Amino acid sequence: MSASIEIREGYSPQNPETLAAYLSGIDAVRAVLGGEPPQWTIAEVGDGNLNLVFIVKGPAGGVAVKQALPYVRLVGESWPLPLSRAHYEHMALSEQARLTGKLVPHIHHYDERQALIVMELLEPHIIMRRGMIDAVEYPRFADDISSFMARTLYFTSDLALTADRKKAMIAAFAGNTALCKITEDLIFTDPYRVAELNRWTSPELDTYAARWREDGELKIAVSRLKLKFLSSAEAMLHGDLHTGSIMLTPEETRVIDPEFAFMGPMGFDVGAIVANFLLNYLAQDGHVESPGARDGYRDWVLETLERIWTAFREKFLALWRENPTGDAYPISLFAEAEGAARLEMERQAYMDRLWADTVGFAAAKMIRRILGLAHNIDLEWIKDRELRATCEARALTLARDMMVNTAAYGSIATVMAAARQVRRDIAHY
Amino acid sequence: MSASIEIREGYSPQNPETLAAYLSGIDAVRAVLGGEPPQWTIAEVGDGNLNLVFIVKGPAGGVAVKQALPYVRLVGESWPLPLSRAHYEHMALSEQARLTGKLVPHIHHYDERQALIVMELLEPHIIMRRGMIDAVEYPRFADDISSFMARTLYFTSDLALTADRKKAMIAAFAGNTALCKITEDLIFTDPYRVAELNRWTSPELDTYAARWREDGELKIAVSRLKLKFLSSAEAMLHGDLHTGSIMLTPEETRVIDPEFAFMGPMGFDVGAIVANFLLNYLAQDGHVESPGARDGYRDWVLETLERIWTAFREKFLALWRENPTGDAYPISLFAEAEGAARLEMERQAYMDRLWADTVGFAAAKMIRRILGLAHNIDLEWIKDRELRATCEARALTLARDMMVNTAAYGSIATVMAAARQVRRDIAHY
Repeated sequence: MSASIEIREGYSPQNPETLAAYLSGIDAVRAVLGGEPPQWTIAEVGDGNLNLVFIVKGPAGGVAVKQALPYVRLVGESWPLPLSRAHYEHMALSEQARLTGKLVPHIHHYDERQALIVMELLEPHIIMRRGMIDAVEYPRFADDISSFMARTLYFTSDLALTADRKKAMIAAFAGNTALCKITEDLIFTDPYRVAELNRWTSPELDTYAARWREDGELKIAVSRLKLKFLSSAEAMLHGDLHTGSIMLTPEETRVIDPEFAFMGPMGFDVGAIVANFLLNYLAQDGHVESPGARDGYRDWVLETLERIWTAFREKFLALWRENPTGDAYPISLFAEAEGAARLEMERQAYMDRLWADTVGFAAAKMIRRILGLAHNIDLEWIKDRELRATCEARALTLARDMMVNTAAYGSIATVMAAARQVRRDIAHY
Repeated sequence: MSASIEIREGYSPQNPETLAAYLSGIDAVRAVLGGEPPQWTIAEVGDGNLNLVFIVKGPAGGVAVKQALPYVRLVGESWPLPLSRAHYEHMALSEQARLTGKLVPHIHHYDERQALIVMELLEPHIIMRRGMIDAVEYPRFADDISSFMARTLYFTSDLALTADRKKAMIAAFAGNTALCKITEDLIFTDPYRVAELNRWTSPELDTYAARWREDGELKIAVSRLKLKFLSSAEAMLHGDLHTGSIMLTPEETRVIDPEFAFMGPMGFDVGAIVANFLLNYLAQDGHVESPGARDGYRDWVLETLERIWTAFREKFLALWRENPTGDAYPISLFAEAEGAARLEMERQAYMDRLWADTVGFAAAKMIRRILGLAHNIDLEWIKDRELRATCEARALTLARDMMVNTAAYGSIATVMAAARQVRRDIAHY
């Protein structure tokens, strides 16, 4: 945060007036909107933490416009952040579109100098996290997100790519260091030390925060995960795959905002989904309208999580069996029947290792949402502070055990059982 | 090998006549050589596999000139190889010089376009492998190579570097794919399948080669190592750190030829040293002049190997304790006494994991030298074919067990004991 604000020639932040003029010069966008600029409505709606976001509507249709600012929007100019994040977002979005088709928004236009992406307006899609707080079920989601993760992770890994193409991707994303550093600091470091940006439900959880900061086992475990995040270039990650990066309806899923993309450990993306489902599950007690009203939805959350992992595992394995095109585990070594059988065993073992990484990264993501800077509205919106602190204490306790005793969580079933158990074990923070 | 020969404008391979004219235009080189070009002697001595190497001597001193060819010298134009390898060698050599001072040759001049490096002439240094075949003891070597490995690996890792500097190094070396692919193919793949380039002591070892190709456990183990080589960007590796890449006298050590450099798993470099010491140890029986004549030297080889690992481990740990400047294991998390003690335990555990990687990579390097394309003269120069096959069978057997049962080799002592044991167990291939 000590760097100065980036100046880029020709770049200027848009406002609704400049944006209308800008968009009127782009044929593809005019075609989507229809009519003439005076007929368009433009609203700045950025509710994320980093960027400007505009919704533009015309007689024929709408677009969303996302533009990077040279600083963190939430904080202001005191926290500079490079405009290049739009470049990485566009690169990742393009790759995700190639691999998953309609699971990401369509890009109408990209302007590197303006750090600006014009994309499909997602309507009536809503941010998934808000839907889950309102107990909305999404029957397609497990299938969609497991496809998204399996395809983006598999096809950008050494299992699918030759080494030269993989290294080219590593080089292409290596410059996204400022965004990676946000993750390194806010997820893997700050929650475990006294840091200005940390916040938590205080004073209720003060003793938890102190104990977590003094927990040697936990700090070693999170540091091992951080080392993996820094040095394991397994596949192209979305990098911020929480339920706030998903817009959907019960019929349709879109994954958005991959500006944190880089080549990293697969378990980080899968763990983000696991963490956000567990947090939502444990937050439901804070949103219960009447006794028992959310029992069914709470089960849906956990069962959907199970389906996500199970489907992801099966799809990833199927992709591996059907597309063994990478330089890792070269198929020419395992051609005969015994070799093929041994390779299949190894595929299962590979998924077990990926699961262990997932458990660890999920735990890190849960803890940062309670003791670090950025919190989840799943928990933040619980009005009763005592109840919120209790929900958070459960999440902290579960996450701490998942990170330190990862080997005890050898399956999604053990995680589900532990999530259920911690609700029973901790009646009050 | 399907690519065509690279054409680079302005590049031309040197010969002794063109080289004299070329060097006469470089003040730094003229100063070293002294006199005038007619007084210089120039000999092409390239005994490596890839490049042109010239020794140039003048009245005042000498230089070595290394120039990349756009193909593999050993094979010819049918195997193209990019000239950029000189760029990566120069970059690695510069970094190694910064980190280890006199443990690498001094660079007098680098010409990117000509893919040419003029460096210190190492005289009377000889290639270490030749010295070890002649049973020469090198009392300084364990100290020097352990320093070289500890400093180059530690200071280019996430333990010492901030993430942005580390990622910049990853990007800088990501283009060295052609050289990495040689390793990927010749070390991790070809020896375990029928491949045109494979060769071994035949027919003596035919059944060994066939069994190694059919060994499912072994092929999975080597494929896991290959995946680590492809995806773990832990530190800047020399990439080819065998005893043929070391020139030395009993008083002085120089590590040469880092053209395979890239950001990879540390155990690959350490394993290269371990493998070459084990191969030399097991080759000594083939060079015995009279009964018992090499017993002392054989012990020196194994004891030196023990000193190398032990000193490397201690030096790496000391560097970590004294320079905790990297983003991994941030020191701010472990400031108080209990945290510091827990971090010290983790440092030991880190070295244990690095040792396990080392054992695996060493095994891969041993097997490729017996069943793959490039062999070691330690074994190749054994005149008695039966004896050579027996030495090789011992090395294969030891290496196979190290790779498949790595956990059983938890210390350098267990490796030493196994090396001694395999000499007793296998009397004849």
